[in-house]
Amino acid sequence: MDSAILIIQCKDQKGIVAAVSQFLYFHNGNVLEVDQYIDSETGDFFMRAKWELASFAIQKQDIHRIFGETVGSKFEMNFTLHFNEPHPRMAIFVSKLSHCLFDILSRYFSGQFQVEIPLVLSNHENLQPVVEAFGIPFHYFPITKDNKQEQEQRQLALLEEHKVDFVVLARYMQILSPTFISAYPHKIINIHHSFLPAFVGAKPYHAAHKRGVKIIGATGHYVTEELDAGPIIEQDIARVKHHNTVEELVQIGQDVEKVVLSKAIKYHLAKKVMVMGNKTIIFN
Amino acid sequence: MDSAILIIQCKDQKGIVAAVSQFLYFHNGNVLEVDQYIDSETGDFFMRAKWELASFAIQKQDIHRIFGETVGSKFEMNFTLHFNEPHPRMAIFVSKLSHCLFDILSRYFSGQFQVEIPLVLSNHENLQPVVEAFGIPFHYFPITKDNKQEQEQRQLALLEEHKVDFVVLARYMQILSPTFISAYPHKIINIHHSFLPAFVGAKPYHAAHKRGVKIIGATGHYVTEELDAGPIIEQDIARVKHHNTVEELVQIGQDVEKVVLSKAIKYHLAKKVMVMGNKTIIFN
Amino acid sequence: MDSAILIIQCKDQKGIVAAVSQFLYFHNGNVLEVDQYIDSETGDFFMRAKWELASFAIQKQDIHRIFGETVGSKFEMNFTLHFNEPHPRMAIFVSKLSHCLFDILSRYFSGQFQVEIPLVLSNHENLQPVVEAFGIPFHYFPITKDNKQEQEQRQLALLEEHKVDFVVLARYMQILSPTFISAYPHKIINIHHSFLPAFVGAKPYHAAHKRGVKIIGATGHYVTEELDAGPIIEQDIARVKHHNTVEELVQIGQDVEKVVLSKAIKYHLAKKVMVMGNKTIIFN
Amino acid sequence: MDSAILIIQCKDQKGIVAAVSQFLYFHNGNVLEVDQYIDSETGDFFMRAKWELASFAIQKQDIHRIFGETVGSKFEMNFTLHFNEPHPRMAIFVSKLSHCLFDILSRYFSGQFQVEIPLVLSNHENLQPVVEAFGIPFHYFPITKDNKQEQEQRQLALLEEHKVDFVVLARYMQILSPTFISAYPHKIINIHHSFLPAFVGAKPYHAAHKRGVKIIGATGHYVTEELDAGPIIEQDIARVKHHNTVEELVQIGQDVEKVVLSKAIKYHLAKKVMVMGNKTIIFN
Repeated sequence: MDSAILIIQCKDQKGIVAAVSQFLYFHNGNVLEVDQYIDSETGDFFMRAKWELASFAIQKQDIHRIFGETVGSKFEMNFTLHFNEPHPRMAIFVSKLSHCLFDILSRYFSGQFQVEIPLVLSNHENLQPVVEAFGIPFHYFPITKDNKQEQEQRQLALLEEHKVDFVVLARYMQILSPTFISAYPHKIINIHHSFLPAFVGAKPYHAAHKRGVKIIGATGHYVTEELDAGPIIEQDIARVKHHNTVEELVQIGQDVEKVVLSKAIKYHLAKKVMVMGNKTIIFN
Repeated sequence: MDSAILIIQCKDQKGIVAAVSQFLYFHNGNVLEVDQYIDSETGDFFMRAKWELASFAIQKQDIHRIFGETVGSKFEMNFTLHFNEPHPRMAIFVSKLSHCLFDILSRYFSGQFQVEIPLVLSNHENLQPVVEAFGIPFHYFPITKDNKQEQEQRQLALLEEHKVDFVVLARYMQILSPTFISAYPHKIINIHHSFLPAFVGAKPYHAAHKRGVKIIGATGHYVTEELDAGPIIEQDIARVKHHNTVEELVQIGQDVEKVVLSKAIKYHLAKKVMVMGNKTIIFN
Repeated sequence: MDSAILIIQCKDQKGIVAAVSQFLYFHNGNVLEVDQYIDSETGDFFMRAKWELASFAIQKQDIHRIFGETVGSKFEMNFTLHFNEPHPRMAIFVSKLSHCLFDILSRYFSGQFQVEIPLVLSNHENLQPVVEAFGIPFHYFPITKDNKQEQEQRQLALLEEHKVDFVVLARYMQILSPTFISAYPHKIINIHHSFLPAFVGAKPYHAAHKRGVKIIGATGHYVTEELDAGPIIEQDIARVKHHNTVEELVQIGQDVEKVVLSKAIKYHLAKKVMVMGNKTIIFN
Repeated sequence: MDSAILIIQCKDQKGIVAAVSQFLYFHNGNVLEVDQYIDSETGDFFMRAKWELASFAIQKQDIHRIFGETVGSKFEMNFTLHFNEPHPRMAIFVSKLSHCLFDILSRYFSGQFQVEIPLVLSNHENLQPVVEAFGIPFHYFPITKDNKQEQEQRQLALLEEHKVDFVVLARYMQILSPTFISAYPHKIINIHHSFLPAFVGAKPYHAAHKRGVKIIGATGHYVTEELDAGPIIEQDIARVKHHNTVEELVQIGQDVEKVVLSKAIKYHLAKKVMVMGNKTIIFN
């Protein structure tokens, strides 16, 4: 079923919902999903509307312009328009750990993710055979202190060449440079292996073990310049016990990581994530 | 802050959201919350809208009529209108177990529930002192096989006398008659101590123990004629282990029961629950 | 590290723990883990002890005999002895759905499961390429009403030929015959896609959707003759909402299914599951 | 049923479990529960054993001495002995918020907690009527910067006078002095309203709201000199959404706080908590 999604952000004003609803109704749009949120602190208005294109009176290529002229400009909206075809193009970065990558590939294989995966990039070679078994090209970028900047430039060029829309860091153990991050603002999803803001940085399971927490967790978030401090998309936790070793925390945690990361990807793909400052609105 | 809530149900038709939004906008309503749901199987449309009354152009007493004339009739809507004052009036039925009752009273005491509790009814006397310590009248209705029908009639009369809007069964260990139930359709909230539909009926913790489940649960639901089969409002679970006795299941389960029941009450009070057939829509 | 695990079951009697502890201590065993459970209803005693073999005074091949002669016979114990090498041999049965299979293969690949997987069997061909990408032989057994009995015989012969220790049904959509089940008593692990005992049988997500539950779940259990009624090893749940379609329940549920099944396998591999009647004791 | 609990801590050595089991068996103790834990990092051994006293060959008053002479001294054990009668004596400190206090009183009322509550202390008067409705004396200690030290001295004297065994801070909004804390080492249980170590200190719900987390939580821990850094006994979390205000986080969080605190109390009462450095071992 051909559908369109409109994502709107502006200052809250009376009549916005009426105007958008009227626009869709007037042009014979069959509305499938509508969500809106008014942030009472900032006075910002957020909306997501999805409707069928079959009977819609405006041609696909004209919707953006006509909506902008008739509604968007009136309320000074920031808005984007999305169609379910063609699928977005997602690049996956991995290192040695396979659990998140396999979880994503499994959903891709079964058709759960409406996405194209033109390539996987890694600073290690061990996952190459499995990636290629899924028919996805694997690119090996060994990283050293000396070549890091240069490799990132090559990676960025490759992403551009493959028209990548967004990037998933599936336990990629390299910190991206500000240059890289700024090329994909709110379009790089990372999984951090703790319930942020606890245990920022390296080795969170070691830190959790040392602190003696009874729960561990994982956080899917957009990458920003400040490490592990970007807008949180999804979090979850698992219970642990005094007798669990760090190695067991790692195993228990991996089950949380992979599900949290895949949920974050799912929300991102469905355009259900909106960023407000350093927080997210999830229309789910 | 004075506010109104409009609850709407009708067949899905194009233009409903636009019409309702337009109505609120046109009369200068400052919308606080809007939720809608279209059931794709039945083609039913459900909506909940909450707005500030302060600047609203229509007087409180006229809103229902004017909305009906201008919007409701056009779409053949079933709709109800609610104001946050005065608070709804809730009667609590209990037997001997105190955990759900105390949890409700605690929230009432702290102002978390915007509700009046004109009376508590029980078929046992043990909870009378605590109920009265909260300043709430306690009515004792001992029930036997012989007097059950008569006592129910007296209870119904008392509820009517106190203008009770809805009833909460806080682990009340008597089965209500169809006559009683039909007096409060979708206005009697019960807590059942299992994750329904598992373990319907009496002694669900014993049944759970015998089956060897690894999770137990509780279900808050509206009471209908068929036992433990009414529309589910809220459910939650807790993990249990092989070494837990039935008595321990009871204790673990009580923590789930009380929180689930109080959440169901909270949703009901906020008019966030809509019933569709034997299911609920929860706008939360 | 070479280690041994002793699994004991007998009537509870005074002195059992002392006798077992004394046995291990006397022969210089470095105890790593000990768990015991006394069922107060049945009077049964269950114990699991794991110790290092390096310094142990008894040779591997003599432990079973000597323990039986000195301790086991005295208390009329049923006991089994297990070593961490060689790994147990697990056969996986699948149909078309990939999520549980991939989850198992992912853990196998990363070394999380200490297991051999000599073969995967399926009544469909679609998963063959991925299974083979992991270097595991794939056997296709199309099943019809007419050939079912014959195919099961061939499957059993194949399992025997490959010296399979236990079987995992990773969303295998065929019901095994009593003959098959009796060949692997408490050695066939199934994942059922509901929180049993709710929604036994086919299409539990449809049934859950129809009943309007707020949680769905999955149950890992040993297969017995009665459908979906065997001893439960592990269960978990996920929250769902009124707007989730059956298809969405399926997707949400799959995340629970795969983690629950893999946990059940993990406990089984670590000899942490003991069966008592139709229930399990999980030493975790 | 009269029972005894032995809590043991020492360096791990071969033969400990055998010696303790032998001691209980030899003196005809019917063992009800045994748990042990060996910390592989520190080489410390922890054990908890519970047995019936009815048939035990040693008189209550002699058990400690005889165990010490025959087993304890041999392994240089730190050990404590506990009987289920008389119940421990617990003092509750509260401020204005009632949810944790009511939850504790509700369990006390229903007999879930095997404890005496000789008094409740508060720096506010609002909860006095309810506390007294439960028949528990209420002591009002208004705290100012000037009188804080003096009031603490009076509180300590009162606790001593009432032979208080341990203290529960049920959302008590005052920081205790090192002097106070050192009088009850690992005997003051606090509930902190975040999933520590995230959001240490004041106003964690505000901090959680600002950071945009998708889960909030609560932590029950022993109080040590460093704020919110003592050994964690229990933690749990609840999911929150972008539209939840700080006030809603507070309400959602209170349901977690009260259950977590009551669980921590329950474990403490059952002698299931052992402290190892800044971590806890929970034999549950």
